[in-house]
Amino acid sequence: MGQTETYIQSVRSYDARYPLPAAAGSDAVHTESEYCLAVTRLITNRGLMGTGIVLTLGEGNRIVCEIIELLASALVGKEIESLMAGFGAFSRSLADHPQLRWLGPHKGAIHLALASLTNACFDLWAKVRGVPLWRLLLDLTPEELVALLDLSYLEDVLTPADARALLNRPMATRADREHVLKSGYPGYDTSVGWFGYDDKKVQDNARRALDQGFRAFKLKVGSRDAQRDIRRAHMLRELAGDQCLVMLDVNQQWTLPQAIEMCRALRDISPYWVEEPTHPDDIAAHRQLARAISPIRVALGEHVPNRVMFKNFMQAEAVHFIQADCTRLAGVSEFLAVTLLARKFDLPVVPHVGDMGQIHQHLVLFNHIAVAQPILFLEYIPHLRSKFAHPAQVEGGFYRTPQTPGASTDLAELTQGEKGT
Amino acid sequence: MGQTETYIQSVRSYDARYPLPAAAGSDAVHTESEYCLAVTRLITNRGLMGTGIVLTLGEGNRIVCEIIELLASALVGKEIESLMAGFGAFSRSLADHPQLRWLGPHKGAIHLALASLTNACFDLWAKVRGVPLWRLLLDLTPEELVALLDLSYLEDVLTPADARALLNRPMATRADREHVLKSGYPGYDTSVGWFGYDDKKVQDNARRALDQGFRAFKLKVGSRDAQRDIRRAHMLRELAGDQCLVMLDVNQQWTLPQAIEMCRALRDISPYWVEEPTHPDDIAAHRQLARAISPIRVALGEHVPNRVMFKNFMQAEAVHFIQADCTRLAGVSEFLAVTLLARKFDLPVVPHVGDMGQIHQHLVLFNHIAVAQPILFLEYIPHLRSKFAHPAQVEGGFYRTPQTPGASTDLAELTQGEKGT
Repeated sequence: MGQTETYIQSVRSYDARYPLPAAAGSDAVHTESEYCLAVTRLITNRGLMGTGIVLTLGEGNRIVCEIIELLASALVGKEIESLMAGFGAFSRSLADHPQLRWLGPHKGAIHLALASLTNACFDLWAKVRGVPLWRLLLDLTPEELVALLDLSYLEDVLTPADARALLNRPMATRADREHVLKSGYPGYDTSVGWFGYDDKKVQDNARRALDQGFRAFKLKVGSRDAQRDIRRAHMLRELAGDQCLVMLDVNQQWTLPQAIEMCRALRDISPYWVEEPTHPDDIAAHRQLARAISPIRVALGEHVPNRVMFKNFMQAEAVHFIQADCTRLAGVSEFLAVTLLARKFDLPVVPHVGDMGQIHQHLVLFNHIAVAQPILFLEYIPHLRSKFAHPAQVEGGFYRTPQTPGASTDLAELTQGEKGT
Repeated sequence: MGQTETYIQSVRSYDARYPLPAAAGSDAVHTESEYCLAVTRLITNRGLMGTGIVLTLGEGNRIVCEIIELLASALVGKEIESLMAGFGAFSRSLADHPQLRWLGPHKGAIHLALASLTNACFDLWAKVRGVPLWRLLLDLTPEELVALLDLSYLEDVLTPADARALLNRPMATRADREHVLKSGYPGYDTSVGWFGYDDKKVQDNARRALDQGFRAFKLKVGSRDAQRDIRRAHMLRELAGDQCLVMLDVNQQWTLPQAIEMCRALRDISPYWVEEPTHPDDIAAHRQLARAISPIRVALGEHVPNRVMFKNFMQAEAVHFIQADCTRLAGVSEFLAVTLLARKFDLPVVPHVGDMGQIHQHLVLFNHIAVAQPILFLEYIPHLRSKFAHPAQVEGGFYRTPQTPGASTDLAELTQGEKGT
């Protein structure tokens, strides 16, 4: 842990924009997007830099960066080990900023800014300890881990004592699950079937992904032309064969009545899940849908902003796969709170990767080894690979265990630029 | 309607800040606030200006103003009557902005910006027709009114045909309810019991409000010291007597277990409602609470961002009083959608007044006369009275019917400033 203490001297935001090549594809709702990262950089007294990221899709990125700077003063002067020792309470105080809270609470642009700041803190902390984020988290005691979390408004289902118990219980069997550090775990390929791709391109992509070792594929649906969705789903199922998984992503484009009808029409291709079938706030609709379309299961989380909404989805039995995202929730901290909630409700966490998988590759390892979450697979979207200093390594369709200290959030360009200063 | 068409030539935002006097009081969560309005001004070819407002509490105001300007281009060049003829579809397209949508969807800073823009459109429209907003709305046919609304994601409970039927049915009995235009309707006084006030000040305020004709009072609770809340609630009940209503506002400070315990402890003072008892996203908690504390009823809406969340609260029987706010929802348009939803579920709408009552004084008249909503009372907070060109007139505890064309949103200072240009 080093004899020298590490202080945060200043906090800067950086509005990083990466126009997508025309071939990158889009979904049914986010057309005309560019991928942007609202980046937090924590500058310290020791030359170490913490980097936090969240994804946005264009214009809004500047807004998130401005809020990062409004919140930043709370971090300046903090010693990182002391800060992280009580990060749960600190996170709550930032989330309840007496002026900015009105813009949420606990959702929208202010929550994205808190996520970027939080992720920067975790990256810095791991760098200070000289270990990758997954190792840092695995080495914490249950008490230390729970102190990282803001569990307020979960008292009816998950107290701090419950959370510690959920971490203590699987401690004895950790060794059984640590082999994943050597074997890696599967990715699934989101990029075979973006919305705008023609049939030929989907076919080519699926064949290439099969050759690369992937065994699970996502198809974007939610077209105004229902027959197009059905035709393409059958096409992908045929290509993928019965041994592979096919997931359908609706990006919120269906009404509840449409969702019920479409899921029945798509039952033949045995989708592993249907993702974001309708409005992400509509818990009752997802509950009704989940009952109506069984055995097809529901996945969501990309637009679920906080642990309170996730709790409600779980209580309502409205979701089967928890696609929590540490760049939509308030960073690594709230992601871990949702992981424990999901464990309580016995639901698998399969992150949505607003970070392009960089941070989540660590969190999946923690969830499996420390929380005994089943390990299924992690979404793989390589669009921004070249932009990261240490891009996630996916080989033969498997995520490999990252070894570099930190949360894998450093950007190639900024790291380089930073070196000269 | 005038022979000359009115075009929106430009859209400007204005970051209006009004530091509160120390005596203005705060609640349990929004400490250190100033009242701010994120103002939209629509400049037209005819010298008329449309003014839209939303409230924020400080730092965030600038953020909302920036988003107003990002969204503004969609309005430039639009003729106001054509725009309003299909405003529901237009509103949906703005709410689904392909880049900014990521910051929500349909919540947070981007939704506040949409509210400010929308309210400016309604103000301008009423000015062009030379009538106050309530008159404008009452004169629309059910078809015209429903075309103002984005009813997407409500298909399972409120189709456009349902909405038109809800407006058609009370048409025959409108005359029975129009007397409210002459009589006015009661306000309730939010300012007797702000959180920081000492007992003496609450007593003085309550006596003054009684003298002024108010018969309903709100007390801020949610203190860490439960005994303080209980003592003050008894004090206010004693002062107000049995004929007046006392409402308790928790500003989200209780956990579900605390809320159940506190409501039982406060049962003796017969609160008319308990407001925002816990986290505003926690539908399941409010549902459990509503069952546990009957006959005390639950009010909320101040932080409910959109019609989909309101639908879920209503479906869950988790709320009794719908405190919709056209400066939290996407403006007058989504407020009206929530009004119709509430009618469907047979629940009263008692707006929260993020606009200080300026716009809602119109909407309450529409809700009662056209939708046959029961008229209870409207919150009264005079803090910003002097800032408006035409402040709401409350006399003898009653809101008087506004007669000036528009939505009563013009600011005194800006109107003056504008005259010279």
